[in-house]
Amino acid sequence: MLLRNLKAPDGVFIDLLVEDGKIVAVGLVGTLTSDGEEIDCGGRVVFPGFVDAHAHMDKTLLGLGWYRNDVGPSLKDMFDNERNLRLARNIDFHEQSSRVGRRMIAAGTTHTRTFVDIDTGIGLAAFEGLLRTKADLADGLSIQIVAFPQSGMLARPGTVELLEEALKQGAEVIGGLDPSAVDRDPKGHLDTIFGLAAKYDRDIDIHLHEPGELGAFDMEEIAERTKRLGFQGRVVISHAFCLGSVDEATLGHLVELLVENDIAIMSHAPSGPRVSPSVKRLRDAGVRMCTGNDGIRDSWGPLNMPDMLLRAFLLVYRNNFRRDDDIQLALDIATYGGAQVIGVENYGLEPGNAADLVVVDGENQFEALFERPARFLVMKAGKVVAQNGECLV
Amino acid sequence: MLLRNLKAPDGVFIDLLVEDGKIVAVGLVGTLTSDGEEIDCGGRVVFPGFVDAHAHMDKTLLGLGWYRNDVGPSLKDMFDNERNLRLARNIDFHEQSSRVGRRMIAAGTTHTRTFVDIDTGIGLAAFEGLLRTKADLADGLSIQIVAFPQSGMLARPGTVELLEEALKQGAEVIGGLDPSAVDRDPKGHLDTIFGLAAKYDRDIDIHLHEPGELGAFDMEEIAERTKRLGFQGRVVISHAFCLGSVDEATLGHLVELLVENDIAIMSHAPSGPRVSPSVKRLRDAGVRMCTGNDGIRDSWGPLNMPDMLLRAFLLVYRNNFRRDDDIQLALDIATYGGAQVIGVENYGLEPGNAADLVVVDGENQFEALFERPARFLVMKAGKVVAQNGECLV
Repeated sequence: MLLRNLKAPDGVFIDLLVEDGKIVAVGLVGTLTSDGEEIDCGGRVVFPGFVDAHAHMDKTLLGLGWYRNDVGPSLKDMFDNERNLRLARNIDFHEQSSRVGRRMIAAGTTHTRTFVDIDTGIGLAAFEGLLRTKADLADGLSIQIVAFPQSGMLARPGTVELLEEALKQGAEVIGGLDPSAVDRDPKGHLDTIFGLAAKYDRDIDIHLHEPGELGAFDMEEIAERTKRLGFQGRVVISHAFCLGSVDEATLGHLVELLVENDIAIMSHAPSGPRVSPSVKRLRDAGVRMCTGNDGIRDSWGPLNMPDMLLRAFLLVYRNNFRRDDDIQLALDIATYGGAQVIGVENYGLEPGNAADLVVVDGENQFEALFERPARFLVMKAGKVVAQNGECLV
Repeated sequence: MLLRNLKAPDGVFIDLLVEDGKIVAVGLVGTLTSDGEEIDCGGRVVFPGFVDAHAHMDKTLLGLGWYRNDVGPSLKDMFDNERNLRLARNIDFHEQSSRVGRRMIAAGTTHTRTFVDIDTGIGLAAFEGLLRTKADLADGLSIQIVAFPQSGMLARPGTVELLEEALKQGAEVIGGLDPSAVDRDPKGHLDTIFGLAAKYDRDIDIHLHEPGELGAFDMEEIAERTKRLGFQGRVVISHAFCLGSVDEATLGHLVELLVENDIAIMSHAPSGPRVSPSVKRLRDAGVRMCTGNDGIRDSWGPLNMPDMLLRAFLLVYRNNFRRDDDIQLALDIATYGGAQVIGVENYGLEPGNAADLVVVDGENQFEALFERPARFLVMKAGKVVAQNGECLV
């Protein structure tokens, strides 16, 4: 297939030849030919497929009618509300994760790392639903699954065994959660997570909402184990709010630990008035970064949508990026940054890479970012999987 | 004209009868009849027309190609860059303000308060361009003009006379700007602004970017003059970043001053990692609030778009609103709050009010807020002024 007349990130109009799921040639517009199908892209902008490196596909309530949220403000209120809601409404995890997956594809996400809740209430039901969705949507969206103890791990006996079972059944990553604030046992929590990772040779992705000095303490503990077990390059800390709320000396120390141990940070440009790690500070120091849309229209709130251009915009907004070179940083994190962190191979718009790409209206990538029109075309492994904002998978 | 099958904010499906630019009757769906035109709104959600209470219509570079921003970080860098750009590019203020005005109408804004730059470089050129736009677009958008000394006032001799001339020629409001940080003479600046307001019987709207204790000091000075000159209910402080960056005791004191003197706050949910006044804290204390999109795609940056649903979403995001009742607050500020603060009369969806309204896809107002589809229909004074996201004016 030949994609004609695309605007490359450097502003040049190009043609792009796709064969066997790969980009085989890129040339100036009008210079490539093909025996097969051609699509005229009308000079629209092209991005590599977006990488949503932090999703919770099992949680969404999309398609179930507006969820009236009057939940209390604490994390525990939200955990408890979600667990109760699931049982009360008998959520179909396969159906729900498919719904949000199709919206992700429609908006140009070709790869995602999604957490899946595993607890003693639902057992592996969400994981199993997500495994089915992963198979169903494979043509449009590569799904990497993180076994995630959302309701606590050591605090709920039986959870570790369930996580281990999910790893045996194919969960690619082991997840952790606020080792001090939730399990109240940072040593036990992190020893267990790193133990499972070592035993099953899996990467690690830990939600760290803990603010200030508490978060800093657990970040030190994560770094220490990363070094000791040789997990450099294999650990992500998600949210890491503490990086937005410690003093300068502590921040400098934490950033050093992240760089030394090649620990990546996922920031989704958090909502709320204060806590937000500085994307620029982290990238300038050499910390690898990715971003993601987190939970979509779930019992935690309706704030997120499955559109990585909106997510990149929120990164721009929360970081007050106004210059083009700064804005570029947010786009890089939503594409190449995410691909690197979650381990997507053959990623990018150069020949030889997988033909995973998004075509969208705009004078350039920046205008597309701020206008966010429906995606003109989404391609995954050389196949058109969405057009004009509609998922075809 | 009869608008059939709208979903009212309370969830009830209604018909809405419009005559002579006014809403004359509201009834349950199917209960009203009309001899005139009917539009089937398909159960879509209705809002009163959005109120963009803080715009800078003269500044936009929309339609002039992507503006590559590599401006330095200080406020002075941005002032200087903007002044130079205007001369270098010979900006047509009428054309530019019309462009953004049409986008505002397309997205459902029926009323705006816009600042217009007045300085010794361009004189009244921007003001005159905006006066023409105000006349051109009057069918679709009510424009209230604030004479605004963007480049400083006392620091640039001749500016006060120009501001005064704009007031004589019909600017409805007198604007001020960072009395300490820009003019370096808070007493002189505020005495002049309040003096002009008293002399010409105009309301006041002051940009206060100054952070922390400096902003707090100028807020005290504004409150003192508001009281002394009897301007209660007639002063807006825009941005008021200091309300997000002072200690609790100072905040309590400032909020008291705002309430005592009935000074309103405009917050647009600022970009950046830290400073954001708490919408809930202010509203709970009884401070009147409005919001606006600020400058759109101008030399200050591309972060804002002329869509008040996006603005309400950003208020929600920056304030971490998750509960329905909190989210409602943001929608109220973008509609009724703005109308009250800038003095729109006969505003709302009840019979007797002006037929200024927006119809948009969504299960309810909240879903419309988070999905933000193109507006199905925008009506101003009983006339359809936009359909399917296209401005008809």
